[in-house]
Amino acid sequence: MAPPSHFYTNNGAPQNGAVLPAGAGNVPPQHSCLLDPNEFRRQGHQVIDFIADYYARMDDYPVHPSVNPGFLRHQLPANAPSRPESDAFGTALRDVRDLILPGMTHWQSARHFAHFPASSSTVAALGEALTAGINVVPFTWAASPAATELEMVVVDWLGKALHLPESLMFCGGGGGTLLGTTCEAILCAIVAARDRKLADIGSGRIGDLVVYCSDQTHFAFRKAAHIAGIHRDNCREIATYRDDMFALSPTELQAAMQADVDAGLVPLFLCATVGTTQTTAVDPIRELCAVAATHGVWVHVDAAYAGSALVCPEFRHLIDGAEAVDSFSMNAHKWLLANNDCCVLWVKKPSLLIAALGTEQEYILKDAAAEGHDVVDYKDWSVTLTRRFRALKLWLVLRCYGVEGLRDHIRGHVDMAVSFEGMVKADPRFEVMATRQFALVCFRLRAPEELGGPKAANDLNRRLLEEVNATGSGPYMSSANVGGIYMLRCAIGSTLTEEQHVRAAWKVVQDRAASLLRKMESINAVA
Amino acid sequence: MAPPSHFYTNNGAPQNGAVLPAGAGNVPPQHSCLLDPNEFRRQGHQVIDFIADYYARMDDYPVHPSVNPGFLRHQLPANAPSRPESDAFGTALRDVRDLILPGMTHWQSARHFAHFPASSSTVAALGEALTAGINVVPFTWAASPAATELEMVVVDWLGKALHLPESLMFCGGGGGTLLGTTCEAILCAIVAARDRKLADIGSGRIGDLVVYCSDQTHFAFRKAAHIAGIHRDNCREIATYRDDMFALSPTELQAAMQADVDAGLVPLFLCATVGTTQTTAVDPIRELCAVAATHGVWVHVDAAYAGSALVCPEFRHLIDGAEAVDSFSMNAHKWLLANNDCCVLWVKKPSLLIAALGTEQEYILKDAAAEGHDVVDYKDWSVTLTRRFRALKLWLVLRCYGVEGLRDHIRGHVDMAVSFEGMVKADPRFEVMATRQFALVCFRLRAPEELGGPKAANDLNRRLLEEVNATGSGPYMSSANVGGIYMLRCAIGSTLTEEQHVRAAWKVVQDRAASLLRKMESINAVA
Repeated sequence: MAPPSHFYTNNGAPQNGAVLPAGAGNVPPQHSCLLDPNEFRRQGHQVIDFIADYYARMDDYPVHPSVNPGFLRHQLPANAPSRPESDAFGTALRDVRDLILPGMTHWQSARHFAHFPASSSTVAALGEALTAGINVVPFTWAASPAATELEMVVVDWLGKALHLPESLMFCGGGGGTLLGTTCEAILCAIVAARDRKLADIGSGRIGDLVVYCSDQTHFAFRKAAHIAGIHRDNCREIATYRDDMFALSPTELQAAMQADVDAGLVPLFLCATVGTTQTTAVDPIRELCAVAATHGVWVHVDAAYAGSALVCPEFRHLIDGAEAVDSFSMNAHKWLLANNDCCVLWVKKPSLLIAALGTEQEYILKDAAAEGHDVVDYKDWSVTLTRRFRALKLWLVLRCYGVEGLRDHIRGHVDMAVSFEGMVKADPRFEVMATRQFALVCFRLRAPEELGGPKAANDLNRRLLEEVNATGSGPYMSSANVGGIYMLRCAIGSTLTEEQHVRAAWKVVQDRAASLLRKMESINAVA
Repeated sequence: MAPPSHFYTNNGAPQNGAVLPAGAGNVPPQHSCLLDPNEFRRQGHQVIDFIADYYARMDDYPVHPSVNPGFLRHQLPANAPSRPESDAFGTALRDVRDLILPGMTHWQSARHFAHFPASSSTVAALGEALTAGINVVPFTWAASPAATELEMVVVDWLGKALHLPESLMFCGGGGGTLLGTTCEAILCAIVAARDRKLADIGSGRIGDLVVYCSDQTHFAFRKAAHIAGIHRDNCREIATYRDDMFALSPTELQAAMQADVDAGLVPLFLCATVGTTQTTAVDPIRELCAVAATHGVWVHVDAAYAGSALVCPEFRHLIDGAEAVDSFSMNAHKWLLANNDCCVLWVKKPSLLIAALGTEQEYILKDAAAEGHDVVDYKDWSVTLTRRFRALKLWLVLRCYGVEGLRDHIRGHVDMAVSFEGMVKADPRFEVMATRQFALVCFRLRAPEELGGPKAANDLNRRLLEEVNATGSGPYMSSANVGGIYMLRCAIGSTLTEEQHVRAAWKVVQDRAASLLRKMESINAVA
């Protein structure tokens, strides 16, 4: 790896005194140069070609780099340059290619099966570019009317496409907003629920509030509850079981809530999950809502990953009963081609969000045209005031691929997961460890009796994952640990992944397993 | 305004059965098409030209549109298309041009003086595009080593460029991270401070914690404290005065803290501001830290806007004593050309952030290479798990403009503000209402005695602002209301703003004022 080119040119002294890269021709007054249309065009076409070349070359990179901590920090100068080197932008792009990309984990790789996808599409990536170029801050309706209205339109479009109940959409009296992440979405919902409850029971009782989830719920929920001031001891993680497909049991939820009530505590909030991170378990929404209702508990559904699959009618039954939930979130940046970041939060009663998060200040300009209208000021729907115009890319995705196109996209990955699952099942050395529901397959290598049997299986599979991930041209997978059982996770969802990549990944797993078993058997034979 | 083109083609029925826009030639297997390099190149060059054309045409738009609530929502179909129309991407871009842009508030307009800037630059806009194209999720070091390391490098680069104390940087034992907004940054700091304090006094006492700010502090602080579970009644907004240039008084802070202690409450957190939103007041950091220290209070400095000015040594004295603060944040997306969003948070003790916000889960892949190293996993530094690779654009900005280039940029705006201030002072009908410190000028029209004198001034200036902002080709300004005095705010900071725009803006203010005074005098004469 070559040292970064500006390591040699950055000596703190002015290079040429110019702020503009060389070659920009006649230099107009400085401020306008920083946003000069011609300069933007010149550099912009470079960037587009750079990204396109990256996609074309994606297969050449190992998914995960072999680098050590400090590999990049130690190559870069300790200070920003005083003046830019000549053609700083072109040189920087070369450093991105030669220094930065080789040190990245390539989430867009067709062989990235480790995490739920951060699925990219050409139109969403370019939608982000458009948003960055236009660069508005639509924190109120007046601060960019079209941006607010497009957001209101696309959250309804998406809600309908995902078969959500109308009560969560603007057209049904609810509404949605675009945020960065699920943790933000849950935090907003918890704060709204908390304030409503404390208004009833007195704000001094924040320490008595209890929140509920399963032991499979993403840690984002516990984090959000903790941020909102819920006592760490007041988060009930209800145990799940393989026989129940790791779903949260309404009976156990009811028992936990009743126990808390009996102890003088106050049930506040339930986070149900459609598609858990470890095994894509689906909690039974209708039954859980019924339990929650008896205790006046806010129900949020976290469908961060699997929410995208709801675009297909065949998955609609997974949210049966969702009419009763108070809020619902999913990450369109995960599996719906909307590029990072794009979390959608819908709520049944926006007024509760606004009561908890809203603010009134004279220096926030109101628009005369908005007076007397019930306009949406999205700053009152979330943690943040400053926000990006995320609606543009989501609108482009829905419009340019269409609902049917998104269905094809989801079904393609589900089909590949079915195929991968079939290959696992066809090999008696392996077993599928959790029922596949979407495009994640959890599996493991059985530990032969002579290698210690089931007790040795966790260690064996840890080693298997290490070996699989160490294969430079191979797949990158991850693990789950559910009920003490360690398993490999193969999450299919990269936009570039095709059937051939899934087959090749399985071949690597088989080969590494065979070699690992041979190695261990020979050690065993010697011992 | 023409109706959107797809209003006519979206009838819910498949248009052509194709997911790809027409003209893409031989159709490769579907998944890879969604991220096809050639398609990206074709659409990408369209987008670059689109944005460049927008910049070139910026002057043709009124800064703020004359539209009514619903203007866009009512023109768009109620559902996403089932299948895309042909050349959906090109058609959508035309709709952005013909429907969406005319309904935007143009934050990049040279005549946008209303809010603190959302300053754009070619390299930051394209840095965002690159980030969106590469689309990684660097929530841990392993999840994209180069992204984490570049972030560590640029927060130190920027901290040094802004003359921050080394104790806030990685090179001095502290560290920084890139977030979306100031409210997030303050929320993270409050939660860290809260957890440290509750560990001392017992978690049951959350209701006794008190936070402090001035009556000029941005409402983001009160919002963050509320989200973190601090009782709304426990936020002390200490009054400021024009004679003190609206700065928070250490004496009054001490009195407030002592009163709380005497009442059995527990001082927790102080938010000091460098450059308040209304008048860019600067709180005296050294003296405030001394008061806070006697009560074990966490001090955060919010320099959202004015932090960018610290790149100039002539402003360094404004943060004298910052060695004693616990955390510091500024928005590089405001005045430092880094495009929305890019808030930088530095903390003296990252371990406190991590204790409050950190999480450990087996399904988060660790890297063998990272074992035994103290790697930074940024998911433990903020609310969110999912995050964008924001470091890339900030690195591009610092590298391509250089520290001296950024100084030139800031000084250019400050010079224009000095010039605007001079024009206000030269016109006896007007007065400057707060000492100008950066590039914001607060001023108002004096109300002549015959029109009611000072008592009538607020209404007069409200009408003046309305008239100024109603001038289609004119400037867009905002207002402050400080100590009961309403004033106009002219915030200079758009990248495209030049001296000529400032002069033209002042001319509009003078003309509107003259016409308003004439109108009122004639009404007066009749009455």
